[in-house]
Amino acid sequence: MVKQHQHKILDCTIRDGGLVNDWDFSVEFVKDMYRGLSAAGVEYMEIGYKNSEKLLKGGASGPWRFLNESFLRDVITKKTDTKLSALVDIGRVDENDILPREDSLLDLIRVACYIKDVDKGLELVQKFNSMGYETSINIMALSHVMENELVEAFEEINKSPVDVVYIVDSYGSMDHKDIDYLVTKFQRLLPEKELGLHMHNNLQLAFANTIAGASKGVTFLDSSVYGMGRAAGNCTTELLLSYLKGARYDIRPVLEIIEKHMITMRQKWDWGYLIPYMIVGALDEHPRTAMAQLSSDERNNFVDFYDRLTSVETAPIVNKN
Amino acid sequence: MVKQHQHKILDCTIRDGGLVNDWDFSVEFVKDMYRGLSAAGVEYMEIGYKNSEKLLKGGASGPWRFLNESFLRDVITKKTDTKLSALVDIGRVDENDILPREDSLLDLIRVACYIKDVDKGLELVQKFNSMGYETSINIMALSHVMENELVEAFEEINKSPVDVVYIVDSYGSMDHKDIDYLVTKFQRLLPEKELGLHMHNNLQLAFANTIAGASKGVTFLDSSVYGMGRAAGNCTTELLLSYLKGARYDIRPVLEIIEKHMITMRQKWDWGYLIPYMIVGALDEHPRTAMAQLSSDERNNFVDFYDRLTSVETAPIVNKN
Repeated sequence: MVKQHQHKILDCTIRDGGLVNDWDFSVEFVKDMYRGLSAAGVEYMEIGYKNSEKLLKGGASGPWRFLNESFLRDVITKKTDTKLSALVDIGRVDENDILPREDSLLDLIRVACYIKDVDKGLELVQKFNSMGYETSINIMALSHVMENELVEAFEEINKSPVDVVYIVDSYGSMDHKDIDYLVTKFQRLLPEKELGLHMHNNLQLAFANTIAGASKGVTFLDSSVYGMGRAAGNCTTELLLSYLKGARYDIRPVLEIIEKHMITMRQKWDWGYLIPYMIVGALDEHPRTAMAQLSSDERNNFVDFYDRLTSVETAPIVNKN
Repeated sequence: MVKQHQHKILDCTIRDGGLVNDWDFSVEFVKDMYRGLSAAGVEYMEIGYKNSEKLLKGGASGPWRFLNESFLRDVITKKTDTKLSALVDIGRVDENDILPREDSLLDLIRVACYIKDVDKGLELVQKFNSMGYETSINIMALSHVMENELVEAFEEINKSPVDVVYIVDSYGSMDHKDIDYLVTKFQRLLPEKELGLHMHNNLQLAFANTIAGASKGVTFLDSSVYGMGRAAGNCTTELLLSYLKGARYDIRPVLEIIEKHMITMRQKWDWGYLIPYMIVGALDEHPRTAMAQLSSDERNNFVDFYDRLTSVETAPIVNKN
């Protein structure tokens, strides 16, 4: 059994699940989520994105994408031991939107970026850190990153005040050997940083990879209730709560959230182990093609979809010059 | 990557999936399954139970539970490289129903038993072996077996001609540490036997545990298409095919089976990651209570179900004497 006291569960249902339903969450649902996660002993709840409405085209999505502080105060009327986090994307956040931590309900700001933007990500981290926030940098799409890029990024990260560095399996393509390799490398090259894992479930390995990492000493474990998250979704919060046994955690309040909300939500929106997501995971590709497939009339034409993704384009490329 | 040539995939959709729908499979479906698995390079297809209709009360289930040889010849008109297997249960099989291998379409007979019946299981194995069949003994509910019982059983198994010994996670409660422990022990104490894994997916760990065992040298890997199997179901065949890469395997014919049959079957019958199955898996219990829950009007009352399974009965036990 994994010792639970060193781990922190970060539930990202509202943030990553919002990518499934365009943040169509009611205030009642988010209130129930915060109450339930608090009662379950979950350490962090990611309540959305703190991106800027001005910087996002077509920004008609719900308030959970922009997290206005006065709106947030209407939702979270009583703060518990469960801290709140928000994710920001490079180029989509206006730093001036963000209050100093003492004036904010947020505790942790996480910066998501690709490896090529780690320097920009760390600039944001520096800013948020100076405003009093806990910070993380979440390096996406790690399965497509070369060793030399990673080592360069680590040098910058080591100079930064960032608290947590996340291994993000954006394409849901990693297995236990990849986790073993990456966690070992991150631990060796980032000895002063806490590590986090954010896994996707395309190959039904999100929970397995998360507990494999936890047993190697990764402390921040991302999950979502009933696995709700983009495409194949995430490691489920209920599985983590049942696995990381100990006085701190109680699965019961999360079962209540699932019973009250998630079963009907799952009937309305798609996430989880769907074959197109499995296929892109196995091919180590971005899920966007699978999401398009599932929104089309062809949603269950798996063989066509597979053939399209694996065919070698044989038409000659004509040089027009 | 796992070297694929030493592994054998044994697809048990018809046999274990039959526990979901009371073997309500059409001949067309089973024909498509055999054709598809053959084209995919799957080494074994378990086509049902070879139990005796006389010995089973209420034996109205389809022919896949009894596998009459002349019926089987109507279904499998052309044998491919994919071998056929059948499972038998102790006390439910009449040995006289079974033809010598040269007169049968079956290649492998697997004997399922609890640890206390290993001696009876091995008697059957002896018989089937003498009739020319490949044999396995599948020890169920291993998570409830004490060390001393296991060591005693191993002594008997080593004296037997059985080819394959299976680790069966009947309750879907095992994690990678359990697999690591059991596979190491089985390998050390059964050095002459091939090993097999049959995992259930209550905790979304069936595939992870199967590939963990494969990387330790387990050769027989059970799976089912789209995971169809009792309760939370099994490791999926499509994930194994995509993972055990190599010239031998092709996922495409299995995607075709899913597209043509499994999506509609899944709408009609329940299997997979359903919360009551997760709960019994986390509690390391038989899924029968969860199956009853899901067949009732209370199917989504998860909190009540959890409370019932975890409450300590406090009513006094009155001694009537």
